[in-house]
Amino acid sequence: MQPPAGFSAIEWTEQGLRLLDQRLLPHTEAYLELTEAAAVAQAIRDLVVRGAPAIGITAAYAVVLSARQHHAGSPAGWRERVEADMEILAAARPTAVNLVWALERMRDCLRQPGSGVAQLLQVARGIHAADRAANYRMGEFGADLIHAGDSVLTHCNTGTLATGGYGTALGVIRSAWAAGKLREVYAGETRPWLQGARLTAWELVRDGIPVRLIADSAASFLMQRDQVQWVITGADRVAANGDVINKIGTYQLAVACRYHGVRMMVAAPLSTFDPAVPDGRQVEIEERPGSEILELAGQRVAASGAGTWNPVFDVTPASLVDYLVTEAGVIAAPDRERLRGFLEQAGGAAGPPSRTPAA
Amino acid sequence: MQPPAGFSAIEWTEQGLRLLDQRLLPHTEAYLELTEAAAVAQAIRDLVVRGAPAIGITAAYAVVLSARQHHAGSPAGWRERVEADMEILAAARPTAVNLVWALERMRDCLRQPGSGVAQLLQVARGIHAADRAANYRMGEFGADLIHAGDSVLTHCNTGTLATGGYGTALGVIRSAWAAGKLREVYAGETRPWLQGARLTAWELVRDGIPVRLIADSAASFLMQRDQVQWVITGADRVAANGDVINKIGTYQLAVACRYHGVRMMVAAPLSTFDPAVPDGRQVEIEERPGSEILELAGQRVAASGAGTWNPVFDVTPASLVDYLVTEAGVIAAPDRERLRGFLEQAGGAAGPPSRTPAA
Repeated sequence: MQPPAGFSAIEWTEQGLRLLDQRLLPHTEAYLELTEAAAVAQAIRDLVVRGAPAIGITAAYAVVLSARQHHAGSPAGWRERVEADMEILAAARPTAVNLVWALERMRDCLRQPGSGVAQLLQVARGIHAADRAANYRMGEFGADLIHAGDSVLTHCNTGTLATGGYGTALGVIRSAWAAGKLREVYAGETRPWLQGARLTAWELVRDGIPVRLIADSAASFLMQRDQVQWVITGADRVAANGDVINKIGTYQLAVACRYHGVRMMVAAPLSTFDPAVPDGRQVEIEERPGSEILELAGQRVAASGAGTWNPVFDVTPASLVDYLVTEAGVIAAPDRERLRGFLEQAGGAAGPPSRTPAA
Repeated sequence: MQPPAGFSAIEWTEQGLRLLDQRLLPHTEAYLELTEAAAVAQAIRDLVVRGAPAIGITAAYAVVLSARQHHAGSPAGWRERVEADMEILAAARPTAVNLVWALERMRDCLRQPGSGVAQLLQVARGIHAADRAANYRMGEFGADLIHAGDSVLTHCNTGTLATGGYGTALGVIRSAWAAGKLREVYAGETRPWLQGARLTAWELVRDGIPVRLIADSAASFLMQRDQVQWVITGADRVAANGDVINKIGTYQLAVACRYHGVRMMVAAPLSTFDPAVPDGRQVEIEERPGSEILELAGQRVAASGAGTWNPVFDVTPASLVDYLVTEAGVIAAPDRERLRGFLEQAGGAAGPPSRTPAA
């Protein structure tokens, strides 16, 4: 199953980097054409593009933009300028590890003697293609776990918009739907940014997969009424012990899953794994402006004087995750030992085209 | 501690019933003057007024409006017409029991020989005053349970706007704050209708009580970080076994409380108790239009073609409730036996000015 034709959220063109402006969805399908790395960093900060894998791919292409600009302008010192741009890109969003991971791969290429714009573009394209391929594999592995007639709840957006294409958790849902296994697909609207309502519903409707949106707070009641057998989410980072850092609300869903005996599946490519971080408590959790809660569609909602607490991600302990699905296979009941063994094997196999785990 | 001066959400005037239009808050403080029961029923359906106790009080005054209208027009058959209006009022919202409870008290008065508009008004005023008095008592009982330095999270709006004044859960928070016990007050924004963001924040800011709004899905992460020791909510109905029917999301908070060892307090006047309902599964859960999720501030948010599941209330089993706080005292670890014993005692005492429990 391929993503719908004519739909690519991140595209390299002759002019530069073409990004679908996700802030305007689902009303408007508008694209930004960016030619400088700093503008891409700003676009990442402003959520023009979001989703851990998509951010990594976007940053990789931004390095190509930087190289193109500086190589032409100063053939001697261009590499230093690209490194400086990479610092700006790395700081755009603090929580997802794919950003750092993609930049490391670009840096490896940059530091190779004789490398230039063409080689960097090749690496960026490789990251993009490998992510899409990983998603198809995850889709198959994840769908294999699902029983015919099961219903699923997903959170945030983990589809084509959030990745190189097809999606992580949404890729699993696409594959399971294509296999005729799913009875119903529910999506949490995902406050405050409403990725579920704005983006996931848009992708699923495009694919002809029926979806029912729920208020995030209705998830436990949905489980009490036996209306879902699975929660499937993506991840922004997976720590060495299997802790999952993901969109705020994921942890609450995992707690509810455990209470109700609903299974919790996290679909995350190996580029999301960060074996250098021992557990989730070490990860910086981005907090975004209170206006995301105090305002709605640009209008003030809450009384002037009200404060907020607006963490964008949360930490789900590995003990609450039933399955970690990667492009190299599935880790059931993940913990530090299982994860280490799995990554050692995956790192040695041909599967992950990317990185040797650091731990 | 009295509610802020000049602030009354429900008021009987010479002209009729004056309701603060809660749909416009916090931007606009506008009042509707209603003179017919059918218009009041429509206002209840449209959420001009919401909150279980406030709905009951409003319906009681609506019966007075009905009596005034029909008594003048047809001195012979006016009682039948009032009874017909009461049917319309009873059907306005299905889940909260206070509506039914208040109408029963009005019907008792209506059926007494020689009763008229003046007697009905007296009963309605009595229901209103008793609710406010009950809230002050609940505030004290609830605040007594809280330790100095505790922080609380509340859900939906349970304050002056939702009651005859002061509030149920918000009354407890007001009393605990006045006693200097609270470190921080968090409020869930309460999708889809945003009662927390729009109404609770407005009430607390008016009272000078600092409040921090969170996305509903952030509650478990707040608990994981040890930032709250209590969740305090109201109830729309309490079943004979102690099951609590309340705003969607309450159940999810109760599950999270149990997982984290955070205490769950439900503040509900005796008018909310429905001993005729054996447990929460028997209560009809209102589902509201999908547009509440699909649209935001009148604008379509989700892709055309997306469905919804939009239950407005949920059922929290008594086993997840640590304290049920009423105007007649506190029921710790409520279950069917404890509740029956408590209600028998409360029904015999002078405390609840209202109803003898049916069971």
